[in-house]
Amino acid sequence: MDKKNNKNESRCALQEILDVIGGKWSMSIIYALFTGKKRFSELERLIPNINTRMLVKELKNMEANGIVTRQVFATVPPTVEYTLTTKGEKLQPSINELHKWGLEFVG
Amino acid sequence: MDKKNNKNESRCALQEILDVIGGKWSMSIIYALFTGKKRFSELERLIPNINTRMLVKELKNMEANGIVTRQVFATVPPTVEYTLTTKGEKLQPSINELHKWGLEFVG
Repeated sequence: MDKKNNKNESRCALQEILDVIGGKWSMSIIYALFTGKKRFSELERLIPNINTRMLVKELKNMEANGIVTRQVFATVPPTVEYTLTTKGEKLQPSINELHKWGLEFVG
Repeated sequence: MDKKNNKNESRCALQEILDVIGGKWSMSIIYALFTGKKRFSELERLIPNINTRMLVKELKNMEANGIVTRQVFATVPPTVEYTLTTKGEKLQPSINELHKWGLEFVG
């Protein structure tokens, strides 16, 4: 019984992970942030084909999921910087493995 | 210029990976197949909350992406078995890392 519950929990965890990294651009944004904090405009430039509305939406979702923090500086115009949280940084081994797999098998 | 192209390719690869593992149940199915080939009915039992229609759909998609192979045996009633391809098996390190991350941070 306990064993069955553990199995179910394992598989449910995998599905919840998709809420966090399954957005079309989430992994690309996380990947861009591995090299350090970035301004909104930098992310926009670094990620090909993303549009402003999508980037805003994904970053909001990632902030809500505790993957990135958003810091606003009172400059004129205001500067907004995004940084990975510890939770976000710890995705590095997973995303690196997926990336290696992608380079070997995709495209 | 070459450097920029490499960067773009890296991020595009991450997006294509989602076509393969980003389905709501794909990772759970792959996870279940790491322990060896499974019959359709076994997968249905192993993956909580999935319905028959969804399982059929995800498996078809995974077959099209070269992640699983489908083998039909001429028994009565016919037996259908699913196995990971090499491409699918090589997702093990990535999914294990995601799983570890999920157990630490999700839920």
